[in-house]
Amino acid sequence: MSLSIKLPATTSHLNYLNHHAKTNTSTSTSNIRTKPIYTSNPLIITTSRSRKMSLEHGSTSSSSNSYGAPFIKSSLIEPDGGALVDLVVPESQRASKILEAEALPKVKLTKIDVEWVHVISEGWASPLRGFMREDEYLQSLHFNALRLKENGSLVNMSLPIVLAIDDETKEGIGNSSNVGLVAPNGDCIAILRSIEIYKHNKEERIARTWGTTAAGLPYVEESITPAGNWLIGGDLEVLKPIKYNDGLDNYRLSPKQLREEFDRREADAVFAFQLRNPVHNGHALLMNDTRKRLLEMGYKNPILLLHPLGGFTKADDVPLNVRMEQHSKVLEDGVLDPETTIVAIFPSPMHYAGPTEVQWHAKARINAGANFYIVGRDPAGMGHPTEKRDLYDPDHGKKVLSMAPGLEKLNILPFRVAAYDTSENKMAFFDPSRAKDFLFISGTKMRAYAKSGENPPDGFMCPNGWKVLVKYYESLQAEESPQQPAVLSA
Amino acid sequence: MSLSIKLPATTSHLNYLNHHAKTNTSTSTSNIRTKPIYTSNPLIITTSRSRKMSLEHGSTSSSSNSYGAPFIKSSLIEPDGGALVDLVVPESQRASKILEAEALPKVKLTKIDVEWVHVISEGWASPLRGFMREDEYLQSLHFNALRLKENGSLVNMSLPIVLAIDDETKEGIGNSSNVGLVAPNGDCIAILRSIEIYKHNKEERIARTWGTTAAGLPYVEESITPAGNWLIGGDLEVLKPIKYNDGLDNYRLSPKQLREEFDRREADAVFAFQLRNPVHNGHALLMNDTRKRLLEMGYKNPILLLHPLGGFTKADDVPLNVRMEQHSKVLEDGVLDPETTIVAIFPSPMHYAGPTEVQWHAKARINAGANFYIVGRDPAGMGHPTEKRDLYDPDHGKKVLSMAPGLEKLNILPFRVAAYDTSENKMAFFDPSRAKDFLFISGTKMRAYAKSGENPPDGFMCPNGWKVLVKYYESLQAEESPQQPAVLSA
Repeated sequence: MSLSIKLPATTSHLNYLNHHAKTNTSTSTSNIRTKPIYTSNPLIITTSRSRKMSLEHGSTSSSSNSYGAPFIKSSLIEPDGGALVDLVVPESQRASKILEAEALPKVKLTKIDVEWVHVISEGWASPLRGFMREDEYLQSLHFNALRLKENGSLVNMSLPIVLAIDDETKEGIGNSSNVGLVAPNGDCIAILRSIEIYKHNKEERIARTWGTTAAGLPYVEESITPAGNWLIGGDLEVLKPIKYNDGLDNYRLSPKQLREEFDRREADAVFAFQLRNPVHNGHALLMNDTRKRLLEMGYKNPILLLHPLGGFTKADDVPLNVRMEQHSKVLEDGVLDPETTIVAIFPSPMHYAGPTEVQWHAKARINAGANFYIVGRDPAGMGHPTEKRDLYDPDHGKKVLSMAPGLEKLNILPFRVAAYDTSENKMAFFDPSRAKDFLFISGTKMRAYAKSGENPPDGFMCPNGWKVLVKYYESLQAEESPQQPAVLSA
Repeated sequence: MSLSIKLPATTSHLNYLNHHAKTNTSTSTSNIRTKPIYTSNPLIITTSRSRKMSLEHGSTSSSSNSYGAPFIKSSLIEPDGGALVDLVVPESQRASKILEAEALPKVKLTKIDVEWVHVISEGWASPLRGFMREDEYLQSLHFNALRLKENGSLVNMSLPIVLAIDDETKEGIGNSSNVGLVAPNGDCIAILRSIEIYKHNKEERIARTWGTTAAGLPYVEESITPAGNWLIGGDLEVLKPIKYNDGLDNYRLSPKQLREEFDRREADAVFAFQLRNPVHNGHALLMNDTRKRLLEMGYKNPILLLHPLGGFTKADDVPLNVRMEQHSKVLEDGVLDPETTIVAIFPSPMHYAGPTEVQWHAKARINAGANFYIVGRDPAGMGHPTEKRDLYDPDHGKKVLSMAPGLEKLNILPFRVAAYDTSENKMAFFDPSRAKDFLFISGTKMRAYAKSGENPPDGFMCPNGWKVLVKYYESLQAEESPQQPAVLSA
């Protein structure tokens, strides 16, 4: 679905931020810092309101470093279920598992299925250890939460993470209790063990996940309607780390890697920003404002996780490679501070399921170690596919998120709406007392500007970031023009 | 919607059981009893696995009787939120509240709205104190549970209990923070205070509640499609107890009355059976078997709450008055033991929302004091309105119920499927090893028998109970015949 426009090689820019941060080895211990710091004794001072960090010696979340001094393990916030799931087979066992997998009945995966294998294998969905069996599926569908067998507590799990198979595949599996999972390129990438096959009631799944069954939901059309009438759950073993070889794999940091990076930077707060669109100055205002608020709250080193979604997106969203290039310009132009920002890719596919999906977006970031989550207007929303209205009430996402079972430990930071303030020619928080001064620039409007070659108002987006988009839309028009005249949409 | 067939007066039969139980004043203290017992010091011995009863003096759940001896308050199981909600205005305040209500903007209620006023006012939906405001509505829709503000714990709440109003009514309310609720007969029956008006997204409500948006869902067609585009929530005050004056009000025991009755009978376990259909011997087998199992578990006096649903049902369900007469025959014929059975009406309307609704059915019975809940095949299910299949997977109801947040304290008793055993000419638990011996007699089939005057196989239902149904279907055919020939449906 996503367009793969080849852009001039700019991935070197993309590496700017993270590389820069990684090579900084300053040992300053000043409390107010402008640079990331690496110390040989990375004692993390946590002041999160949401979770009492155990600083006692000998607690389960601490161990000793080589000097015998107390050493606090990476975590501003515990992963769901207490431990990060990692389902990638250790290298030493790889060869034998590959042999085993080859002898098993096979299940062919779609591109989106592979994205889910990736997501599950790295623990974004912790404590989930594979595609959902029916009891997990039902809990997800009805309660948006899973009950832990160990202690009866609830963790959030709002989207069914399931694998569909058709009748023929089911028949081929027969009585086997394990299957091999085969990527679209023919590679057997994983084993699913102790499988359970159950009915895939698509109508019910769609209705309960999206709150509508209207035709035209992107994920449904791409991944559910064409899928089989059975779901297969089980425990996943991934034969080697999932890679995409698209020049962006170095941005695909796993939750474990992100936690390590937050520790290395001695973050005392991590605030995650989920996005699937280019960053404009309204987004930046909000991220910078959040940082300011966290500093005012007493945090010394809040780190922003700028976390674009990297899996399936709908056809008219800006593709990942373009977005990544745009994001790197935003950092290069200094709109966001590279010293306190980590850019990484969140490998999940997009559902456009509004209040249901935003919980997934937040929950996955808990597992990646973020203890603050920014939520704005209509998160994971889109227009209704058949009616002229938003599919979801724009306020429901933040309301649902703030009440969701299993997300109590996460600090939710509701978004103040930013818009273009024509009186000051910059993006600013919307002030209802002078509403007429503000211009809301929608994605559609932005696209229309870019397509027409017209610039958006000054201060809407940093110039180099804007250029990336213009270039992208030009390339798109060049591709489209043989088929259709370049009509400007409003 | 429900047919109001006037039957020969048989309500005297209906009073048999409960009256009989109430007038028994035996003071026997034998542990194994066959008769209900009333003692002057009703100390309840609770052995429920699901909840530790506080027997200590001075605990919040105990008080002293007039003799100063410890007196344990009624409850085998705590109401959700810890206290049973009772929203009926005390008689002393009634006159002034009625005066106040008359001066308020008015909201006209439908028959189903009044059923909900009834349900809420008596505490079936405890801790809910009125029609849902948006935060409660969203939690219900997304999580099937409400978080208690007091302590953060979750109580089950799977159905949105909401009141819809149209644009005109909304306009009429203006800035008033309270409204009067007016029954279809013109009586102002309640005040809704500190109101909140929010959007009624019918499509989303239907999709998330039923898991389908297919046309033909009975509750949707009766109560949602014709309703307004706004929901109004607030705190309810009911001006006097809701009565229907249909000769069945004495069966409409409130949760408080039921708890008192369980105490009076010194029940040490109460198992609730929700139904909306006539009782056949398969149901009876299962209820009697449940009692046997509870006795084997060590309970000394398990009481059955036979609890037919009394609110809205779909047009082809047997109406309440006929069902109540049929139930009374089942008790008179000794198929169920009147000594250990309480028959009462559950005033809720029926949603036919399967796994979502069965949680409501169970949760409401917690509030009524039942600590065991029987759940069978496809609870609250029906055929798909537009496809030739069950709307819900017949096993999902019991699975969802057993995992539902807020129902942990309730003992779920899954139903073994009963069918007509042709080798023994009686209803028996289905034995898959000799499946061909068993005959499944569906509601449709039963209706066909009754309509044709043919008897079902011996032992399917007690003869006097069956006669009630035959009489009902005959009256129905007599009514129908002018319009259409009496065709036998299969």
